[in-house]
Amino acid sequence: MKILIAGLGLIGGSMAKALKQNTSHQVLGLDRDQDVLLDACSCGAIDGKADSQDLRTADLVYLCLYPEGALAFAREQGPLLKEGCILTDACGVKAAFCREMEALAGTGSYVFVAGHPMAGKERSGFAASDPSIFVGASYILAETGAPAWAQRQVEDLALAMGFGRIVRTTPQRHDQMIAFTSQVPHALACAYVMSPRCQHHPGFSAGSYRDVSRVANINHQLWSRLFLDNQEALTQELDELQKNLAAIRNAVASGDQAQLESLLKQAGDIKRQMG
Amino acid sequence: MKILIAGLGLIGGSMAKALKQNTSHQVLGLDRDQDVLLDACSCGAIDGKADSQDLRTADLVYLCLYPEGALAFAREQGPLLKEGCILTDACGVKAAFCREMEALAGTGSYVFVAGHPMAGKERSGFAASDPSIFVGASYILAETGAPAWAQRQVEDLALAMGFGRIVRTTPQRHDQMIAFTSQVPHALACAYVMSPRCQHHPGFSAGSYRDVSRVANINHQLWSRLFLDNQEALTQELDELQKNLAAIRNAVASGDQAQLESLLKQAGDIKRQMG
Repeated sequence: MKILIAGLGLIGGSMAKALKQNTSHQVLGLDRDQDVLLDACSCGAIDGKADSQDLRTADLVYLCLYPEGALAFAREQGPLLKEGCILTDACGVKAAFCREMEALAGTGSYVFVAGHPMAGKERSGFAASDPSIFVGASYILAETGAPAWAQRQVEDLALAMGFGRIVRTTPQRHDQMIAFTSQVPHALACAYVMSPRCQHHPGFSAGSYRDVSRVANINHQLWSRLFLDNQEALTQELDELQKNLAAIRNAVASGDQAQLESLLKQAGDIKRQMG
Repeated sequence: MKILIAGLGLIGGSMAKALKQNTSHQVLGLDRDQDVLLDACSCGAIDGKADSQDLRTADLVYLCLYPEGALAFAREQGPLLKEGCILTDACGVKAAFCREMEALAGTGSYVFVAGHPMAGKERSGFAASDPSIFVGASYILAETGAPAWAQRQVEDLALAMGFGRIVRTTPQRHDQMIAFTSQVPHALACAYVMSPRCQHHPGFSAGSYRDVSRVANINHQLWSRLFLDNQEALTQELDELQKNLAAIRNAVASGDQAQLESLLKQAGDIKRQMG
């Protein structure tokens, strides 16, 4: 297959490396940053830079771009893609994005498959790319009416890259779950480090500080967009968190040991059961 | 030196192993659980079980027990300890506990040094003990008027065990900082997993879910006690968190992109600056 990867950041770069390491497909790259393209070529992450002829003959294109960039690509380059080319993305919110992508796909010959590789790091950019982040991770396909053969192709490549699990869901369900599993932890981490005590943590902190605050090293523009694209589900999830935090806070403030033990035991039981 | 370790759980067990690995001191253990004593002996974590004669001749005793257990030990075994024996603890809150320990020490011949090794795991018990958790970690001494020679002894042993940093502070400052660095992350983790969406997270979760929720695998009795012993500082810290979470929540709910970006950027800058 001829595979194109648009956007050679953390995810695109890691995918390129994973494909080159595990398959014999041709992997070409697209990126606004020429230095990134050179780095990717020289370390063998890609076989070369894609030109317009490559776009016309590509079998599959990964859009590893911010939502706006992915939509712009679909709008501008979509018409060049051949009949049956699979255009698939890696965006962190689905419902709003898929509606727009499906409208654009309707005007083209390619097939859009909505995807979300559930793996990452708080660091970004090609320099941080590392195919091992995918090993054993989940790859989500948000079903948007794409034909089964196209979905299977994306799944097969995901498994070849090292992902351990394929999850098929709807865009709405995806967004509801991602609000909890991914967006709230980022909001939490940011709220947490805003405490004045954070300025004095060195020497007083260990694993629990590091783990909660890790993703506060945040790309604020990307994540603002992701949060606002998932406004309803995220607001609901943050309200749920506030409610549960308030219960713990009130038990502490009122010295209610029985209630506090009950709340913490409930949480402990959930974590031990659910992992 | 003859060193006794009362309580061979995660911390006591790890300290025993660290002392045996890195020093030539004699290390004896005390634990209500005979099986734990046997395990500790057979794997070389301790040289043997301590009897009452060992208590009378011990040079230093580590209390690796819950606050109530540590106080009971000081009350019941304190009178047996020799003149100049150092009695030191590993409790996670200091002000309330130190007041009581200092009152008890006043009636004995030993010297009390308040300590807090800043390292741990969410798993507990001797079976989870592992001296590598101390490597590079912080060891806090909460100053309670103990003579300098006794504090230095505890510091020297900490460095020998692998700790990377000694921090001297007051019990009050310790508690204020611990509320932020340790207690809030535990409260947060518990509140987080109480969301109904947690029941469905497999397949939708990755590193950020794992990191925030890790310490929800909580010992609810221990942590309720630690929270309530630090009631004022923790309530203040939870209120601070609620305030900052509400700011993010409101920016999302009202679709205020500029404000949301500003909040997330502020957090990102703090994390990148403070680590």
